[in-house]
Amino acid sequence: MKAEIITIGTEITTGSILNTNSKYLASKLLELGIETYYHTSVDDNVERIKEVIDISLKRADLIVTTGGLGPTQDDITKEIISEALGLKLIDDEDILEIIKEKFNSLNRKMSLNNLKQAKKPEGSIFLNNNIGTAPGIFIKRANKTIVMLPGPPIEMETMFNNEVIPLIKQDYYIINRSINVVDIGESQLEMELRDLINIDPDINIATFPKESEVEIKIIGKSYNREDLEDKVEYFIKIIENRFRDYIYGYDNVPIEEIVFKILKEKNYKIGFAESCTGGLISGRLSRIPGASQVFDRSIITYSNKSKIQELGVNPLTIDKFGVVSEETAIEMAKGLLNREDIDIALSITGLAGPEGGTDEKPIGLVFMCIANRNKAMPIRCNFIGNRENIQNKAVTKAFSELRKFLLNL
Amino acid sequence: MKAEIITIGTEITTGSILNTNSKYLASKLLELGIETYYHTSVDDNVERIKEVIDISLKRADLIVTTGGLGPTQDDITKEIISEALGLKLIDDEDILEIIKEKFNSLNRKMSLNNLKQAKKPEGSIFLNNNIGTAPGIFIKRANKTIVMLPGPPIEMETMFNNEVIPLIKQDYYIINRSINVVDIGESQLEMELRDLINIDPDINIATFPKESEVEIKIIGKSYNREDLEDKVEYFIKIIENRFRDYIYGYDNVPIEEIVFKILKEKNYKIGFAESCTGGLISGRLSRIPGASQVFDRSIITYSNKSKIQELGVNPLTIDKFGVVSEETAIEMAKGLLNREDIDIALSITGLAGPEGGTDEKPIGLVFMCIANRNKAMPIRCNFIGNRENIQNKAVTKAFSELRKFLLNL
Repeated sequence: MKAEIITIGTEITTGSILNTNSKYLASKLLELGIETYYHTSVDDNVERIKEVIDISLKRADLIVTTGGLGPTQDDITKEIISEALGLKLIDDEDILEIIKEKFNSLNRKMSLNNLKQAKKPEGSIFLNNNIGTAPGIFIKRANKTIVMLPGPPIEMETMFNNEVIPLIKQDYYIINRSINVVDIGESQLEMELRDLINIDPDINIATFPKESEVEIKIIGKSYNREDLEDKVEYFIKIIENRFRDYIYGYDNVPIEEIVFKILKEKNYKIGFAESCTGGLISGRLSRIPGASQVFDRSIITYSNKSKIQELGVNPLTIDKFGVVSEETAIEMAKGLLNREDIDIALSITGLAGPEGGTDEKPIGLVFMCIANRNKAMPIRCNFIGNRENIQNKAVTKAFSELRKFLLNL
Repeated sequence: MKAEIITIGTEITTGSILNTNSKYLASKLLELGIETYYHTSVDDNVERIKEVIDISLKRADLIVTTGGLGPTQDDITKEIISEALGLKLIDDEDILEIIKEKFNSLNRKMSLNNLKQAKKPEGSIFLNNNIGTAPGIFIKRANKTIVMLPGPPIEMETMFNNEVIPLIKQDYYIINRSINVVDIGESQLEMELRDLINIDPDINIATFPKESEVEIKIIGKSYNREDLEDKVEYFIKIIENRFRDYIYGYDNVPIEEIVFKILKEKNYKIGFAESCTGGLISGRLSRIPGASQVFDRSIITYSNKSKIQELGVNPLTIDKFGVVSEETAIEMAKGLLNREDIDIALSITGLAGPEGGTDEKPIGLVFMCIANRNKAMPIRCNFIGNRENIQNKAVTKAFSELRKFLLNL
């Protein structure tokens, strides 16, 4: 079954609001085993909506629309789809009653416009809206299924889950897994996965690049559940064997949460000594509920003097090797470990740019050091991009290296 | 001029990622006076991309695509658009060199796939990509303009601003101004602006709520530039008079940049003593190029003990008033000011949740203190929302209060 999602509204096409409905519906449909090939947004214009509906009726089997079901003059989705399908709009007395009651309970005056919300195309089903006033509509005609939902995400999502899923559920199983990798480029990854892509028609493997990592997605679809579980496991095993060193997690759990869990299990307290990331690593960890269980403190030493005063970095080290150097990173981590409550220290010093790069030490050069009281592991990195990219990549890399360090303890 | 935005990628159509590119491009085009009537997303499938491009060539004058310019097999936007327009793909030697250099500087192996990024349709212009490896493409043919940009938002946005805008500018004048306000709700703001909205057909006024602030947008469009400038200034004056106490800046300059500029002008060094925000305030400041000119250091004291050890908070203060209290906030700021290099200190301690709230001290209760060596200004806040909302609102509030404190010095 091929699906198209059509989101209707000038507020979307002009960029006034972000279209979250299409993403939500697409991922829900995928969970049901229905693939969405097209998302279309169109402004509140009769001709253009009509054109978009006509196109979708030619290329999709399932069409889900959001928006244009409200009481205003602009709300014309129902009218246009009825026309496109050659169906008359008829009154639904039950719904009319429900709408009237809602207005009474809200103590709000019902306008004549609200009456049009009680109309539906002949042969269609009204979908109940517990939150707002606009009911949705479900039509099945020949091989086409059309679902119309209101635009506000909370109404749309609730209705999709409660009313639409039971009507469009497939009878096959879907398994949707992700493997998350770092330190490997998308093109290399894709080349080394290519031979797996067309082995099995039930299994779809795709890579999705993010700023400093890549998601490998494995989507399986079959009528036989056990068989499918085995197959997905089989592919995961193969991928694990090929990319063991790059995998940091599964199913899109953020890397800082993985580090958080390991720290918690091992009962370690961590601290950060940040320079070029200026608090971004600490901030990322502090986003996690319960961070205080593993996070003791951080010292953000932006100036050289603060590195000396707060972390005991030797001024001669900075003079000799530079503030962006492995030696300074090591002394920063060791200085932080002087706090008895900290078991693991991660330090970072680098050039995020845009100013300050040289041939010998270019923008993007970053040194980290991860240490406990037994060992210190320095890491040298070269990141590319603007200041924001370099900082973001450094944050991800810090957590990725921390994970490895912790697992080897 | 009618525009269509086409975002290409299976990660969008399957709902794996949110499509922020369409919103960004639509609002940028609107600022240029170009109306977008259609957004289309399609998966990485040759036939469907071709179909979508063919449709857009019939109904739009300006087509902006994102995605499908990378080095993998899936990246076929350029190939398909060339075919649709009947253009050959030719090699561009200059771009080939640039791509090679980028890979060298990264110390990463260039695959054969990367070579296809140096191809462009005949008669087109390459658009420079300073951040990633995939260049964009601009084609003008008959009455159609086609712009192809890469999918990653940071690359796409930079390229649109630097490379595309100069190529598609209209011949009438657009003035696009924003007034940024905090500490006032959107509905109050909207009510107090309502009388201004339909005064002048050349001037469009709208409010856009963000997480902890609101943007008032004034868009003027006219063939007469001087006249337009006067009109826009007139509306800005009226709005300034009405909302003087809430305005922190103009044209979406982030509040931390405004604080950065004031600190730089006044030649002050700042430091932060963060607890519940865990480094997020420092991190925000460190995003700014040249932050080291005003940012000396921060102490992130997540544990109580670290507040005592690093900032000299009196244990009795914590016992008596609690760690989330005005008294603790004041001592944290004063403790940080013991570092001679810091002129201004901001401290923050609060309950970001989800655990730990009481009737007396609920989740969302946050105390800050801004101090220099002459005065200390404590601030009590009650934020609502989840952990992330509370942290974000606290960060914005910190900079907003810092701005006021600095302007009164």
